[in-house]
Formats: sequence, C-alpha cells, structure tokens
Amino acid sequence: MYRQKEIEKNNLDKTFLNNNFLLQNDFAIELWHKFAKTEPIIDFHCHIEAKTIYENKPFNNISEVWISNGLSSQPKGDHYKWRLMRAAGFDEKYISGDGDPRDKFKAFAQTLQNAVGNPIFEWSHLELKRFFGIDDILTPNKADKIYDRVNQLLASDNFLPRDFIRKSNVEVVCTTDDPADDLKYHKLLAKDETNFKVLPAFRPDKLVHIEKPDFSEYIARVSEIVGFSITDINSLKKAIISRLDFFHKAGCRLSDHGFDTFVYSQATDSELANILTKVFSGGVLSDLEVNKYQTFIYLFLASQYAKRDWVMQFHINAIRDVNTLAFELRGSDTGYDSVNDETVGQAIVKFFNDLEIKSQKNKINLVPRTILYSLNKNDYLPLLTMGTAHLQDLGLYGVKQKFQLGSAWWFNDTRNGMLEQLAILAEESLLGNFVGMLTDSRSFLSYTRHEYFRRCLCDYLGQLVQRGQLPNDLEFAGNIVKNICYWNARNYFGFYN
Amino acid sequence: MYRQKEIEKNNLDKTFLNNNFLLQNDFAIELWHKFAKTEPIIDFHCHIEAKTIYENKPFNNISEVWISNGLSSQPKGDHYKWRLMRAAGFDEKYISGDGDPRDKFKAFAQTLQNAVGNPIFEWSHLELKRFFGIDDILTPNKADKIYDRVNQLLASDNFLPRDFIRKSNVEVVCTTDDPADDLKYHKLLAKDETNFKVLPAFRPDKLVHIEKPDFSEYIARVSEIVGFSITDINSLKKAIISRLDFFHKAGCRLSDHGFDTFVYSQATDSELANILTKVFSGGVLSDLEVNKYQTFIYLFLASQYAKRDWVMQFHINAIRDVNTLAFELRGSDTGYDSVNDETVGQAIVKFFNDLEIKSQKNKINLVPRTILYSLNKNDYLPLLTMGTAHLQDLGLYGVKQKFQLGSAWWFNDTRNGMLEQLAILAEESLLGNFVGMLTDSRSFLSYTRHEYFRRCLCDYLGQLVQRGQLPNDLEFAGNIVKNICYWNARNYFGFYN
Amino acid sequence: MYRQKEIEKNNLDKTFLNNNFLLQNDFAIELWHKFAKTEPIIDFHCHIEAKTIYENKPFNNISEVWISNGLSSQPKGDHYKWRLMRAAGFDEKYISGDGDPRDKFKAFAQTLQNAVGNPIFEWSHLELKRFFGIDDILTPNKADKIYDRVNQLLASDNFLPRDFIRKSNVEVVCTTDDPADDLKYHKLLAKDETNFKVLPAFRPDKLVHIEKPDFSEYIARVSEIVGFSITDINSLKKAIISRLDFFHKAGCRLSDHGFDTFVYSQATDSELANILTKVFSGGVLSDLEVNKYQTFIYLFLASQYAKRDWVMQFHINAIRDVNTLAFELRGSDTGYDSVNDETVGQAIVKFFNDLEIKSQKNKINLVPRTILYSLNKNDYLPLLTMGTAHLQDLGLYGVKQKFQLGSAWWFNDTRNGMLEQLAILAEESLLGNFVGMLTDSRSFLSYTRHEYFRRCLCDYLGQLVQRGQLPNDLEFAGNIVKNICYWNARNYFGFYN
Repeated sequence: MYRQKEIEKNNLDKTFLNNNFLLQNDFAIELWHKFAKTEPIIDFHCHIEAKTIYENKPFNNISEVWISNGLSSQPKGDHYKWRLMRAAGFDEKYISGDGDPRDKFKAFAQTLQNAVGNPIFEWSHLELKRFFGIDDILTPNKADKIYDRVNQLLASDNFLPRDFIRKSNVEVVCTTDDPADDLKYHKLLAKDETNFKVLPAFRPDKLVHIEKPDFSEYIARVSEIVGFSITDINSLKKAIISRLDFFHKAGCRLSDHGFDTFVYSQATDSELANILTKVFSGGVLSDLEVNKYQTFIYLFLASQYAKRDWVMQFHINAIRDVNTLAFELRGSDTGYDSVNDETVGQAIVKFFNDLEIKSQKNKINLVPRTILYSLNKNDYLPLLTMGTAHLQDLGLYGVKQKFQLGSAWWFNDTRNGMLEQLAILAEESLLGNFVGMLTDSRSFLSYTRHEYFRRCLCDYLGQLVQRGQLPNDLEFAGNIVKNICYWNARNYFGFYN
Repeated sequence: MYRQKEIEKNNLDKTFLNNNFLLQNDFAIELWHKFAKTEPIIDFHCHIEAKTIYENKPFNNISEVWISNGLSSQPKGDHYKWRLMRAAGFDEKYISGDGDPRDKFKAFAQTLQNAVGNPIFEWSHLELKRFFGIDDILTPNKADKIYDRVNQLLASDNFLPRDFIRKSNVEVVCTTDDPADDLKYHKLLAKDETNFKVLPAFRPDKLVHIEKPDFSEYIARVSEIVGFSITDINSLKKAIISRLDFFHKAGCRLSDHGFDTFVYSQATDSELANILTKVFSGGVLSDLEVNKYQTFIYLFLASQYAKRDWVMQFHINAIRDVNTLAFELRGSDTGYDSVNDETVGQAIVKFFNDLEIKSQKNKINLVPRTILYSLNKNDYLPLLTMGTAHLQDLGLYGVKQKFQLGSAWWFNDTRNGMLEQLAILAEESLLGNFVGMLTDSRSFLSYTRHEYFRRCLCDYLGQLVQRGQLPNDLEFAGNIVKNICYWNARNYFGFYN
Repeated sequence: MYRQKEIEKNNLDKTFLNNNFLLQNDFAIELWHKFAKTEPIIDFHCHIEAKTIYENKPFNNISEVWISNGLSSQPKGDHYKWRLMRAAGFDEKYISGDGDPRDKFKAFAQTLQNAVGNPIFEWSHLELKRFFGIDDILTPNKADKIYDRVNQLLASDNFLPRDFIRKSNVEVVCTTDDPADDLKYHKLLAKDETNFKVLPAFRPDKLVHIEKPDFSEYIARVSEIVGFSITDINSLKKAIISRLDFFHKAGCRLSDHGFDTFVYSQATDSELANILTKVFSGGVLSDLEVNKYQTFIYLFLASQYAKRDWVMQFHINAIRDVNTLAFELRGSDTGYDSVNDETVGQAIVKFFNDLEIKSQKNKINLVPRTILYSLNKNDYLPLLTMGTAHLQDLGLYGVKQKFQLGSAWWFNDTRNGMLEQLAILAEESLLGNFVGMLTDSRSFLSYTRHEYFRRCLCDYLGQLVQRGQLPNDLEFAGNIVKNICYWNARNYFGFYN
C-alpha cells in the first residue's frame, strides 16, 4: 500500500505550488514526474486567434495578457478574472475598462486576497512561477514589484506569444473559427511556424442561430464568399459544403458548437423552405420554427462531419449573456454567462437516433465521432451513458465511433470538477481512452492548466492504488497517463494525417 | 507540507467530539483554535421568536427544548428530530404529541442508536457537552441519568433562554416576522437586553401567496394595521411601504422569502387590477394569474428593499407540506417538507433582468443585495453563476451589489453539504467575502452549529494547504476565517449602522 | 483518533485487492473482519432465472458466464461488460455475438487495460480471486493461461451455478418474474434446494406498458392463465388479484417496477373504460391516455401490495433502449440504456398523497412499504426527503411504514456511488435501518459485489470515527454493520414468515 507523502516539518514554508503539489502519495508523485510532465500538448480547443499568433507582437504589460485590452468599447480579455474582480467590488474601469494597467494589476492582486480555493489563485501563481520564475505570493504589497519584473521580462527576448506556446511544449493549437473566415493566418502560419501547428476548428454558431437579427446579413456574406446566392435549403447546403471543404483543406478536423440547450423538432422540406423564406423576407420566427431549423442544420452538419471523419464537439447547458444590460454595453464573452439547468437527455437521444436511422437507410455512416461537454456537471452521467449507448457500436455502423465525455469545462475547470469528471468517466467507460485536456482559453499563459490537469489525473490514479483498487504497477498506470496526456488526442484527431 | 494529525494510540477512547474533531491536519487545528473559536456570532436568519427571548421563561425539561411542546393540536418543536423518530417507528405521541417528556427523551435516545452519520447525532452530543458539560454518549441505558442531570441544570440559574444566547457569544439575532407583526417584543428587548440585539426580518409569505384561502382575510388585517383600506394595487403598495418603514425603524435590515419554485410571468396593470378584484370578491385564480401576481409582488418588494439598502434572501426549491393528510392534522413545519427538483435558472435570470432594466430606466438602483439559498444542491452552480452575472457589477448600477450564495441549508446543513457549498463558492467566486453561517433554527441550543460550520471551514482551508493549493500562511488564512465567521456579516448587513 | 493504515514498504507489490482494500483505517479494518465479512447474504433483487438455478447445468467456459451466451439472435449476458468492450472498439461478434469464447475472453482482457477505476476492473479480479483462487492481473499476455485455468475449474465438481450461491453464503435469492409466469422452477427449488431459498418477485412491466404493441396479446395470455376474459377494468383488477395471490402463495413478498419516468394523471372510471376499449380494439393511445392508465394501474398495484404487506420497489429515471437500431437488432438489456434527467418529485408526491387519502377514506392502509431507487443520483435528496415525508408516519396510518432509499443502482454501483448514497441516507435519515445491498445481476459470480459494498460501508464508518463524528466503539458500529449487511433485510422483508 502506498504511503501518504512524507512531510518534512522544515519544509512547511515552501509548500504552495511545490514540486509535488496536488499529488497526495508517492505513486502519484512518480506518475507525474516520470510520465506526465514531459508529454507534449495537443490543445484541440482554445480561443486564441491565429492572427495574434501569426503577428507575434510583444505584449505591452502583464495586465494586457491577464486582464483586458483596455478598450472599453470592445473589451476583450480574461472574463474569468473579471467576474472575480467584480465580486471584489472594483469599478469596471479597472476590470474590462480603460484603467491604467498597473492599477488593474493592483486591483487583481487585491482581489486574490479573498480568492482562496479559486483556480485563478493557483493558475495565476503557477503562470508567474513557470513562465517568469516568480515564487512570491501576489499580494497588494508585492504587486508593484511583480508587475515591474514581469513587464521587464515581457519586453525582453523570448517572451513573445509564440514563445509561450513553444515553451509549453505544444504541438498543435486549434483555434475557433467562423465558416466565413478566410483562414489567411492559418495558411501563413503553416508556412512560417515549424515548432507547432495552428489548425482551424469549424464553429458555425452564426449558421445555427437563425433567430439572431444578423442572420440574413451573415448569409449574404457567406453567399459572397462562396460565389453564389443562398436562397433556399439547397443553396444553403451547397454553401456549407463549400466552406467545409475549404476548412478541410486548411487542416481542419473538428467542429465545435455552442449547443447550450436544444429542442429536437423534425421539419418537413416544405416547412424548412417556408422558414427560410420567412427569415429572408424579414419575418420573425416562432420558437417552434427556430427549433425546426436548428434541428435540421445540426443534423445536416453532423452528417457532413461524419463524411469527412471530423470530430464534432457540443458544449451543452450554458446560458449566455444572461445580463441584458451588460450584454448591450459590453457584448458577449465579458463575464455574464452562466450554468443552465435544463434537461438535455431526450433531445440528445432523438438527435442521434435520427442520424443513425438515416445512416442505415443510406448505407453510409452519418454519425460523427463526438465529444459532449456540459457546463452542468449534473449532466455528466446522463450524457455519458447516452453517448455510450449511441456512439460506440462498431457492429452497427462498421465504423469505430469513439465517443468522449469532454473534460470538465469552464466553471468546472477546477480540481473538484476534474476529479469528478475523471471518476465518472472511469466508472462508466474507459478512462484509458480519454482524449484529455484542452485550455478553452484566450490567453497564451494558460498552458499551465495542462500541468494542473495532469497532476489531478496522477493523483486520481494514486488514490486508486492506495485503496487497493488498481495494481501497484507504475508502467501500467504510467502508460495510461501518457495516453491521456498526449497519445489519445494524437490518435483520435486526424491532425497528423 | 502539513502533516496529517498526530494520533496517539492511548487517546483512542476520547475521540468523539474531541477538541480537534473535524480538523484533519495541524493547519486546520491552529486555524480553529487561534482564529475561529472566539469570534462572536451574528445569527442573521433563525426562527426563534422575540416573545420567547423577551419573556425568558425557564424550560421545564430538555424534551421541551429538544423535541416538542407537548401540544398535539399545535405541535411545535424540532421537526428535524421528528423525521428521525418517525423513521425509527415511534408513535407520534412521543414525537410531536403529548407523550410524557421523559418517554420522548428515551424514544429520542433510542432513535440515535441508528443515526450514525446524521448531523443530529453530532449536534445533540455537542449541545450536551457545550451547554451541560455532559460527555456521555446518549444511549437508552444512560437516557434517564442524562435526562435528570440536564433538567436539574435547566432548573438552576443561568440556563434561561437568554443565557444560551449570551454563553454562545451571540451579538445579533434576527427573527423571522410577518409584515403584520407589531414587533412589540423587539422594542421591549431593545430596551431590556444589552448583551445582544434582537432584530426583526421581513418575511412577507402571506402577501405573496395570493392562492391561499386566507389571503383576503390577511389583507383585511393589514388594512386595519395601516389604517386605510387596501382595495387595489396602489393601496396595496402603499400599505407594504408603510410596513417596510415600520420594520426599518425597528432595526430590520433584511427580508426573507420562502421562494420555493417560481414562474416568472409579467403582467399589465389592468391584468393585475383584475387579479386583485377577482381574489377580493372570492374568485379562484388560475395558475397563470397566481404567477403574474407573484412576479409583480416579488419585483415590487425587491425594488423596495433596494431603496432601503436591505438584503433580500430567497430560499429556493423547497416543496412544503407534501403530505396532505399530515398537513391537515398537524399544520406546517412539522416534518413534511422536502427537497424539490424543478429547474430554476431561467426564472431567476428574467427576474433580475427585469429589475436591472427598470433601474436603468429610472436612474435609481432597484436591485437589492441578495442571498440565494437552494435546498437542492444541484442548483448551487447555476444559482451562483447567475447571481454573479447579475448582481456583482459596480459599473452597471453604481452600487456595490454584493451577491451571496447562501450557506448549505436545512437538509444540506451537514459536513458534506457545507464542504460542497464552500468548495463551489471558492471555485466560482470569492470565498473570502462569504457572510457565512446562520442557524435557521427554532432552538436556543443550536448555536453549536456555528462551531460545526467553523470547524468545516478551517478543515477546508487546511486541506487546501496540505495539497499545496494555498500558501502555508496562518495569518493570511486566519484573517479569512475571522471574516467569514463574523466580520463579513457585520459589514454586509447594516445592523450596526 | 484512529490512524491511517500502517503501510509496509515491502508490501507494495501485493496491494491490489489486498485483505484490507478499500478500508482506510484500523477501525474500518476491524469492522470488516470482525462484523461484516461473515454475515449471510439476502439478495432481494437480481435477474438470475429460477430455471437456471434449478437445472444447475455446468458452464462451458468463463466467457459464457462473464460475457455472453453466443447467440447473435437472442444475445444474453453481462451488458455492463458489453458497453466497455464496445468503447474499446471491438467487433460485436466478440461482444454479444457468436465469436469464439476464447477470443471474447481475450477481447475482454484487452478492454480491461483501459478500464482503470471502473468497477468491472475490480469486480472481475475479485471474482477470479474469490471463486477461482487466481491472483494474477488479467492482461492480454495472461489471458490464455487464466482462461484455461478457470475453464478447468468450471468443468470440475463444485463449480455449478448453485455452488456459487452456496459458497457466497447466500440465504435468499429473489428473482424477477412476470405476472404470467407459472413459477414452476421456484416450486421445484422449494423442494429441492435446502441451502438457500429462491423466491419470486412480481414485476408487472407488461401490465403497465399499455402503449407497447404487444399489450393486448399479453392481456389475452393472462386471461387464459386466470381462466376468464379480461374485457374491462373490473376483470383486469380481478385477474391481477388472482396472480398476486398466486405469487404470494409461492413466497413472493416484494414487487419491482421499471418505473423510469412517470407522469401522474388521475382518470375517471369512464375514461379508464374508454382507454381499455380503445386499446383492445387496436386503437393508438395518446400520451395523456397512457399516463392516466399508468397512474391507475400503479395506484391499484400499490394498494394491493399494501394489503399483502409486500414491499414495493420503484426504479426511477432510467431511459431504456435509447438506441432504436440497436434495440431492433438485439432487443432489450443489451447495453443501450441510459441515465435520464427528468424531474420526478411532483409526480411522486401526488402519487403517495393519493394513496394516503384513499387509505384514510377507506380506513385501511393502502400505502405499501416502499424502496425508491433512482438511476440519477441527483434525485437521491428529493426522493429521500419526499419518501420520508410520506412513508414514515406511524401515527398517520397505524402501520410502521418503513421507507427506504434504495442502494446505489446500476451505473451508480461504484465506490463513489455507494459512498454518496450512504452519506445522504445517513445525513437525512437513519443509516442504521438501511436494508442494504442487492446484486441486480444476471451472473452467479456477482455476489462479490456484496463484499465490495460492505467494505465501502465499513470504510464510511471508519472515516466518521477518524474525524471524531462517531464514538470509537467497535461494538456499537459493528452492530450497525451487521444489521445493514443482513439483519435489516431479514426483518424488513417477510421471507422468513
């Protein structure tokens, strides 16, 4: 039986983020240091932009990286931190606004004083430590000193955007791209950057959200890009296929949907035709019409992904921009999203049944390999068991349909959230097949989240060994760790084909 | 790295509720003994009555305090214990009925023999120990001896109701009061009791529940109190304002709602007028009409709280009096309530959006500082992220809108429930800002629940330090502990203004 | 305070499933070895068939026991394992199909290499160890050797179906039987087998599912068995009563319902009459009609169970055969079921209120003792608090209505699932009254799941003692352990009356 970690009294003041943090016994410690630490990273879902990677401009200061871009009209930045700073009661100027970067940093340092147990407390210090060699705790007293030191480094060589990616041992970065995107920077990067690949991922939210006021305008833009008018279902399908092919050529192998909640509702061809006619002529759709269109478009997209052997990602049970005033003032992705609590099971079941029956009828596989994420961890067990019942049957489709329950996402991207997702995955399916972690981040410093995840994974296995639930066999467990850290993602996605 | 607690072999028989119980390492132990233990208590939500405190009559026996008042027609007492005694199969006579107090005590002692892991097992022994110096385990064999000893003490000096409050180092007690209450005893206590404050809290359930048969009668009573007829929306609003002002003068600074589940449904003025007319003329309202009235009244009350800078408390996803026969026989609060599983997210979002948009339009803040509790812990994450998205934005309202996820409530008032609430609060917001624990109790002995909560809090932080997730800095963590135990509540509520 | 288990360095390679696995301190270890280990088993809910027990035919090989019967047209076997093997990407031939048994075994061995943390990993090795004395880890390399060794034993004496039951110290096995079953094998076993009882359990799914195409045909079959035509509600009731009496005579004392999700909807007598007429004349029922019939039949059955003092079991929030194609190809119970996420509270409350009010009106108890299971652990707290509010009131019915929250079921039958169910039961009710574990299994080797459960139970209590939440009193805790392992089930069910 493995022992609890040996603890030295005189080591007490060095514990925070020490070499073995999060690792609660010797088995876990060995797993991390011998197997997990050195595997490369495939970051298959993040929100970094290809343009920023390509241009590789130096950062002006750490507040720009960590907090916000300083543009009140179009604020961008780390809205995880913004929520905390708002909870701390700071004026928006120092959060998403145009406040002085040093003041923002100090406000953030002040915020951290009450952020015990929050992953941002740990992530921030881990980023200071790993990228800038800073071991200090970020307190209001030390904020100035740390701010200056980090900015000094950011101004020096080797601290450009791409440097952070390289230093993090990243092999692949998948961005998140609109179907109308020209992927110019992906193409430039393909020629320019040899240390890692930057690949697009297909995120057709604007094609899906027919209820949004800018839908017709968006379709007009797509028309222009594909070179023919989109006037009906057929021309819409043709346009989508054209963009999918374009993305495929640029190396895209996966899609992503802000699925949120979804009501399955089948439509006839004439109903669909009427819906499109209505929306193109400026009419307002009923909820039922929106559901019918969305059901159609999701089914169509899914079947197209399957044909190209892409992976489909659904992000379920988020509710976005819940604060109407804040949305009008600051736009999306500014810290006003929330976990939802709608039931999702029945719709998911109907959706995949539909695809499967069409597959059989057409004697072609129309069910893509799928990753289901939910923002509400209460959905993990329903989603995992439904996905397993639908997507893992070789005999049924003649295709190896590996289904995945996505890693703990966003508000669940915490030690507890990760351990819960790992345990459910292990208990109901094959943990050893898991494609593992992604950053889902807008920051170049977030790669330390992979370290955090890997430590949790090693700790999970170490606890199993300690309780006698797993053989005390480092090679066996170590092999699984390496697969989850890197090799499963490498084999699952077609990035190296 | 902190060590697991040193354990002495010869100490084995003294473990139950020992000095360091619930504290799993040295850091947690030091936090409890140096920081948490001595902080005063602000019990901002409980169900003790001001009359009982004022009158300060001696208790006849421990069964009266612990179990029930012996009145079968209007049973009152600790329905937490009643549920357990019913599960043990005792006749109601010995539970809420008029059985002999000694027999009730023995029945309870017998019940405890199967209550391992139940908080009542721990709370009961903690109360015996802290208030009566009894270290024995309450078994059927020892029941007589313990019963006599406690009753002997209850008959002596220093064991009156107010003594328990004083001995528990309580500074503020907030009762739960109907808008029609005259607050006589609060006023008397304000003159009479110098060791602690007893303040009213505004609980307008009877104003909200228009669907209950006694609504019209209740409104007539309020009319009498305010001195004018309530005949329409305007006079109803005027009456409510009058009572709010009356409560405010008596020191009230927070409200409380048995929110249960809530369907948001906006009404026009004429619809509201019709609803009131209908109910006052004895008509029966449809579900939709009830929802419309309740949406209106909640919005109105919330805006009034905001104007007075009161705190608003919502208690969500309880389902009350689910056993119809038992309700008819014994009334409310007799052990027949339950956790509900309705979705709550969308209604909460619409509710606060409505208030926020009205605030902006009227250039005045109509969104009160809010504490959301749910009886279903599956709601914690949706509620916390929604509350955060709505109520923490200084820039938006010009007011520091501190939102709080309420402490683990009722059926969740357990070690697991508390740790889960603390972890979610820490992971998604600022734990250091938490206003902490309340008793929600009808008993003068329940103050030991604060000790229980504080130990869980210290243990939570100790575990973080042990895993390297928090600096090993006693002063830093100790400061947070003191704030959550006392100072945050002191600063959040306006009790000392 | 109890110490963490002493761990010997030189013992490191013997940890997996060691004598003390899952037991994390000395108190838990003593509980298991002194109290839990030797108690007999009452397996009150499983899916083993009486015919198979009676015939007691030797197994051809371990794949037949563990994986499947080799019949592609009517596949039967362990669909828990099938899901994992499908996740591993094997051809269905080697899962539920007609593949070579040795190849199936090897495919399963290969699957286990990624099944870390899955209960099947632990259960499989525990079965190899306890029944066949095999300590090896089942790897692809050792698969042949283990396959041969187990088959050699299966061909020898003392490895027949009944031997596994006897060796597991089982006293009662309850099968799961259709009302139309003739219970021939139960009667034969009653005469033939003296070491343990095999009793029927009443599972009237086919009576309930009026919406299934074979309902009329099924009713015709029941008509034949009872000897009169079922043409209306009265004759249907009479037929059910006849079958209940028949089962009762054969020793049946409990029923079981695949309750899934349920919509409460009361019907008038004439509505019911019309529904039956419609379905018997080949009409298709609306959802509302189905709900009305099901509400009626559940209420009727429940009251009949109460009259016979049977226990009623509801299995809630499963969604079955979610994969339409797979269902058509392979039938039910082949690995395509899932956890559902529907709300259940309100329907359960209405259901029991209805029974209770009828009980009062008729002055006879119509509320059976009830065990509620949910496949979605988010339901535990609502179900437990609702059940407690409804079914535990001696004063109300004059009957001791012990309600039980069923043990962690199916996808929750894991260490985490069990600990969560135990903790919720302990925190909200009386853990000491729990009737404990069942196998719910189709395999004769599954009795090791009782060992697994009992170890989790001992560990749970050991952790309470270690944190000072429970007296360090082995006899006290040991008595509770023995009750949960055996005596509570013995006293709760009427199997020995």
